[in-house]
Parts: sequence; structure tokens; C-alpha cells
Amino acid sequence: MSSDSVNSAVPPSDPGVTDLFAVLAYGEISAFYRLAEEAESAPSLRGKVAVAKMAAAEMGHFTTLESALAARGVDVYDAMAPFVRALDAYHSSTDPSTWLESMVKFYVGDGIAADFYNEIAGALTPDVAAVVRDVLAETSHSEFVVEEVRRAVEVSRSERDRLTLWGRRLLGEAITQAQYVMAQRDELTDLVLAATGDLNGIAALFERMQDSHAERMATLGI
Amino acid sequence: MSSDSVNSAVPPSDPGVTDLFAVLAYGEISAFYRLAEEAESAPSLRGKVAVAKMAAAEMGHFTTLESALAARGVDVYDAMAPFVRALDAYHSSTDPSTWLESMVKFYVGDGIAADFYNEIAGALTPDVAAVVRDVLAETSHSEFVVEEVRRAVEVSRSERDRLTLWGRRLLGEAITQAQYVMAQRDELTDLVLAATGDLNGIAALFERMQDSHAERMATLGI
Repeated sequence: MSSDSVNSAVPPSDPGVTDLFAVLAYGEISAFYRLAEEAESAPSLRGKVAVAKMAAAEMGHFTTLESALAARGVDVYDAMAPFVRALDAYHSSTDPSTWLESMVKFYVGDGIAADFYNEIAGALTPDVAAVVRDVLAETSHSEFVVEEVRRAVEVSRSERDRLTLWGRRLLGEAITQAQYVMAQRDELTDLVLAATGDLNGIAALFERMQDSHAERMATLGI
Repeated sequence: MSSDSVNSAVPPSDPGVTDLFAVLAYGEISAFYRLAEEAESAPSLRGKVAVAKMAAAEMGHFTTLESALAARGVDVYDAMAPFVRALDAYHSSTDPSTWLESMVKFYVGDGIAADFYNEIAGALTPDVAAVVRDVLAETSHSEFVVEEVRRAVEVSRSERDRLTLWGRRLLGEAITQAQYVMAQRDELTDLVLAATGDLNGIAALFERMQDSHAERMATLGI
């Protein structure tokens, strides 16, 4: 990053930073409960344990964000409230019907979110960006997901086709909800604009996200 | 503890130690999923977060036990298998029908288990006992539970009566399942005997557990 962009970083006091921490925090909570629920369909105790570990990692991230918000004098529950509807809508509209769909959703959905928030982090001061990058850090649990999915799609072409469509739908729904959140929250939109420059920059961001998405799909073999 | 009892400690290589780590590990997994499921009935987002944190703490303990078993050359999934039925039976027979019942079960059930395993830890070498005590350590989340329950029973006598009966049932079911496990697993029974001396010692252990249980019920105001 050039010293220019650091100089023009969004100040930590910006209300958009509170919004960013809050939407990430509610993302962790909702991911926790989705994962725990979807583990019902795990084919083995090993799968259940893997999912429980992923879910527990989400709560570690939540605690980081809760502390970061507390340090700003903000109650995490108040701050999360505006984002409950959009994130719940994303999860309802992408409710997995099989264990493999859950696994793809975890891997692909987390990846899409990480791309989006990591780009925003580029506009933040180093200490604020560090919180964001910390809670987005990929965990080793992803390896479990990649193995589960690759093994299944290698032996079944119809499974592969089905999961390919599923992955495409996840990207579409995620972008829909991201746009909805931005339309509702000016503070967050300003942050995204600070990170991308202008509306063309936002379009370019969504293109880069589609490229990364395609790479993740390829990693899964779909 | 006198140097005598340390000298006569159960050696770390004892197969009962593997059983002990394994039953604790499955206890953490099953508690994780029970908590996550019961959080559906949480009256607020704050309650859901508190439960998710408790559940995440269980997974931290699971990881400790998984590592301890790996250090013994034992696969955690193989080792847990003999305990799945008894622990699942305990949870099925004590399925909470309200949020407050879930809270009482978390607090009282965890306490009963901790009493039992802490007594066994007294017969172990310090390094093995440290693993057991580490995974049984009470977390600060208990405070949340105590507050939730106390507040509810202060304003409702019928709620208090109902939860008192519920707490009594939890103790009964826990002892039933503990006896069932011991009848099935000689290695574990030998550990309990090493910790308590003889059958009279086991009876005395169950009496001490009842006393601690009564104290916990009093803390909850029931």
C-alpha cells in the first residue's frame, strides 16, 4: 500500500467503522447458529466435530469484535440490530438442503464475505484493519470442507452439476444482500466508496469478487 | 493431598485414563450441540450470544482432550464410541422444554459432572489431573445463567417449583447414566474405585455430589 492511501485512510472514529464491526459481529453469530443447525445432517461424528470447531472459531471472532466495539463505547447488541434482517434474509434464501450444500456454503460464503471486507480494510487505519483481517482469517477447517466436497464431486457428475448451480446462487444472494445493506446504511456505503474510489470502483470490486469466487469453486472441483 | 495418595496415583498409562478423557470429550461435543439447539428458545439476541459462547468454550475443552488422547496414540473418535449411547440417553431423558430449563440444565448438569470428575482427578498423577481440571474449569458464563434463573424465580413461585423438580430430575438422570457407564466400562470403574477406595467410598462420593447439588440449587434460588 502506498503512503498516499495510508494518509487518506478513514479515521478510526468514522461511524462506518462501528457499522463494519457490527455487521461482521452479527455475521459471526448467524454463521455460528447456521453451522450448528446444519451439522444435524453431518454423515459422521467426525463431520459434526469439524463443524462444531468451525462454529466455535466464529465465536472467537465475535468476541474480538465485541471488544473492539466496547473500546469504541458501543454496545454490540445495539450496533448489530440494523443488520439482523439482511443477514437473516441471506441465510433463509440460501438454506442448504444437504450436507454438501452446507459445506459449499460455508466455504464459498465465507470467501465472498472475506473478499468484500478485506477490500474495505484497505481503506482503514492499520489498527482498525487488523481487527477486520483478524476475524476474516481463514481457518484450517477449510481443508476439511475442500476434501469433503472434492471427494463427493469426483464420483458424481450430477452432484457436481448441482453444487455448481448452488455455488452460483450463493454469490448472487450475497451480492443482493450486500447491496441491500449498503442502500440502508450510508455510513457503510461511504466506507466502501472510500475503499473503491467511486461507483466504477464498486463495480470493479464486484468483478474481482466474481473472479475469486470462480477460483474457490475450482478448488472445490465444481 | 498427602504424598501417600500421590505415590499411589493411577499411572498415566492406565486404560481408565483413556476412557476418562474420551467420556469427557464426548460430553463436550454433545453439550455443544444441545446448547446450540436449545438457544432456539432464547428470549433475546443477548441470550443467544451467551449460549453460543458457552458452546464455543465446550469446543475449546474438546480440543484439549483430543490433543491429550492423540498424545496417548489414541484416536478421539474411536475412544468416544463406547460413551455415545449413555450420554445421548442422558440428554434425551432431560430434554428442556423451556429456556429456563435449558439454563438450569446447563448450570446444574455441568456442576454434577464437574463434581464427579474432579473426585476422580484426585486419584490421578498431576499432569493427567491437570487436563481433567482444565476442561472442567467453570467459566464466567455461569454468571449469566445464575442471573437469568434467579430473576425468573423471584417473580414466579410456580416457575420456582417447576424448576426445583427439574433440578432434582437432572441429578437422578445423571446418576443413573453414570452408573450405567460404570457398569459397562471396567476401566472407568477401576478409576472411580481408585479415587474413592471401595463401594462405601462410591456411596460417600454420591452423597457429597448431592450436597454440592443442593448448594448449586440454592445459588439459583430454587
